Amino acid sequence: MIRRLSLVGLGLLGGSVAKAARAQGLADEIVAVGRDRARLEPALREGVVDRISTSLEDGVAGADFCLLATPVATLTALLPAVWQALPADALLTDVGSTKAGIVEAAEALARRGRPLAFVGSHPMAGSEQSGYGVSRPDLFQGATVILTPTERTDSHAVKRVGAFWEALGARLVTLDPVTHDRATAAVSHLPHLVADALVDAVGRMDPRFFEIAGRGFKDTTRIAASDPQMWREIFQENRAGLAEALGAFRAALDELERLIDAGDAAAIEAALDRIRRTRETAV
Amino acid sequence: MIRRLSLVGLGLLGGSVAKAARAQGLADEIVAVGRDRARLEPALREGVVDRISTSLEDGVAGADFCLLATPVATLTALLPAVWQALPADALLTDVGSTKAGIVEAAEALARRGRPLAFVGSHPMAGSEQSGYGVSRPDLFQGATVILTPTERTDSHAVKRVGAFWEALGARLVTLDPVTHDRATAAVSHLPHLVADALVDAVGRMDPRFFEIAGRGFKDTTRIAASDPQMWREIFQENRAGLAEALGAFRAALDELERLIDAGDAAAIEAALDRIRRTRETAV
Repeated sequence: MIRRLSLVGLGLLGGSVAKAARAQGLADEIVAVGRDRARLEPALREGVVDRISTSLEDGVAGADFCLLATPVATLTALLPAVWQALPADALLTDVGSTKAGIVEAAEALARRGRPLAFVGSHPMAGSEQSGYGVSRPDLFQGATVILTPTERTDSHAVKRVGAFWEALGARLVTLDPVTHDRATAAVSHLPHLVADALVDAVGRMDPRFFEIAGRGFKDTTRIAASDPQMWREIFQENRAGLAEALGAFRAALDELERLIDAGDAAAIEAALDRIRRTRETAV
Repeated sequence: MIRRLSLVGLGLLGGSVAKAARAQGLADEIVAVGRDRARLEPALREGVVDRISTSLEDGVAGADFCLLATPVATLTALLPAVWQALPADALLTDVGSTKAGIVEAAEALARRGRPLAFVGSHPMAGSEQSGYGVSRPDLFQGATVILTPTERTDSHAVKRVGAFWEALGARLVTLDPVTHDRATAAVSHLPHLVADALVDAVGRMDPRFFEIAGRGFKDTTRIAASDPQMWREIFQENRAGLAEALGAFRAALDELERLIDAGDAAAIEAALDRIRRTRETAV
């Protein structure tokens, strides 16, 4: 049981955590922290949170569980102030889409003085929509949450943060931060960039071609309608992972084109069939 | 009103045309033609068609409206025999995903002797599933059907074929065959190849990465689970269109990567925002 849950950032993810935690009765008190008071007020009016604050220090003071749910570029910037303001026995986690940077920043802070329990989390429950308005209490039901402890992370803290996400309905996966960033580059950041390039390519060829786009194009490019700032930050934060994934993608695309150009029907079908079976069994 | 509707091929598209035409009462008699009698029998038992035949000549003889609904590579091969067997006043159309080849073949047959009314059609209603078992009478409701007449196509035939698809619930778009192949390369064939390459790239990096794939990856790669033979044929038939679309796609992807590497946050967000607005308004 959490006494005071402080949420820094109340968008889709922070808002959904607040609604789910409230619905499950996971915390006696829920405090939401954000820069813009007007954006926090709906949650207060709806009883989703008990208190709102535009002061980071005030909002996280006295919390025994603190979740950072701001855009990924802001996370690392906010971390030192949150680190200082939290009680020594508090648990701190986040929802960032990239993990090597934030985990490294947290471990640097711990080395320099205050040993606080930080566990990196990444709920794979984003959407092309954003903001508190689209948050919902069941967002994490059946979603995957990746925990990224290192050998320096307190195992009791990992268990408690994991139990928190499980209470919200999530399925846990544990990866080290660098593997997390490689894996999310592969299955999330690369597909986003590719969807963007697909939309852009059609626009470059002839915008009238969009008129005949069917369900395949719509599904494949749905994520190209995502928030530009959020994805700019993710692409920049995870340049190393994205570069590796782009390399693997270009190699795969070149190989398929080479097969088609070579014209060996059996070889093309064997490759497409292997990919189809991978898609059907692995995803 | 159609007296005898002959359908050559009774998979997802042919089967759905049969079911929709039966439901709408568009034809007095519906005949299904295929190589494998056992695959045609369910439609006969269900009363979706009145007669089945494994003989192309017998199956299309006496038809006033004939629809070719076989895989794209078979279409051109079957065309001469169908052309000979159909009555002189019959209307002939198809459902092929590429159009320059079949239209050229039909016009060559017309020049060499029999002037038959052929109108190329492409219903954008495919699926990653195939076969009569997944066909349904509402497949064309709200779907786009592209007609590809040329200056040599009889305008009365274009109207009648268009009216047929509209009776099945489709929305019509008219494109010349070469523009059709460029447009479908852009919004259909390219996204398929890219989805294949995405799945393949993740497999090459580390198959365990699939375990954390979320909805974005699932949607983006859904079409990678499509029928290998069908897509091998489409990729081969439309190599020219696909090559152009791949060129535009690679240029768009390179440009996005260059922007990310250059690190100009405003420029990256401007590009992502432009693409998002294109996706939201055009698709």
